[in-house]
Amino acid sequence: MSALVNTPNPPYYAVIFTSLRTDGNHGYAEMADKMVALAAVQPGFLGIESAKEGSGITVSYWTDLESIRQWKSNTEHLAAQKLGHEKWYSSFKTRIAKVERDYGI
Amino acid sequence: MSALVNTPNPPYYAVIFTSLRTDGNHGYAEMADKMVALAAVQPGFLGIESAKEGSGITVSYWTDLESIRQWKSNTEHLAAQKLGHEKWYSSFKTRIAKVERDYGI
Repeated sequence: MSALVNTPNPPYYAVIFTSLRTDGNHGYAEMADKMVALAAVQPGFLGIESAKEGSGITVSYWTDLESIRQWKSNTEHLAAQKLGHEKWYSSFKTRIAKVERDYGI
Repeated sequence: MSALVNTPNPPYYAVIFTSLRTDGNHGYAEMADKMVALAAVQPGFLGIESAKEGSGITVSYWTDLESIRQWKSNTEHLAAQKLGHEKWYSSFKTRIAKVERDYGI
């Protein structure tokens, strides 16, 4: 992660994706990069923050729930989700959350 | 991160803390461990997930906003926050979010 995302004033939405990986890469890294690039051109996308050390946390930020629904059902993203289930993740959790307040430096 | 947090059915709250570190440790790792242990015994605490690779993302989960407010104003936590501002973080962002939906494997 090279910079924190400069999100607008709340409310906006966060998708918190936490995961534990299976062993090996199996094309994961390439697909992860591709999905970040693809998410970035979707309507409502505000930015993404990711940290991985074996397991990982990726938080993407969105203007509204409808944008999140559309991204979830994007054809290429659906194919990546299927591979994630089958090959890459031993477990994962996706949480859809409304950011109500934020602050920082 | 050794396991994903088994949170209850939504709604509950997530505090998304993303940060970029300054150079060096300056007691950061010890304080981080201490704060995780201290958070874990606070009312309303549901669990914590953290991934760090230079920069980091830590998400803690809470039953309600009042529990988050109390943890934010905990005396030892306030001292840690002050050191975070002064020594450990070049930038950070804290986002308070209401988890409305979740799913996973």
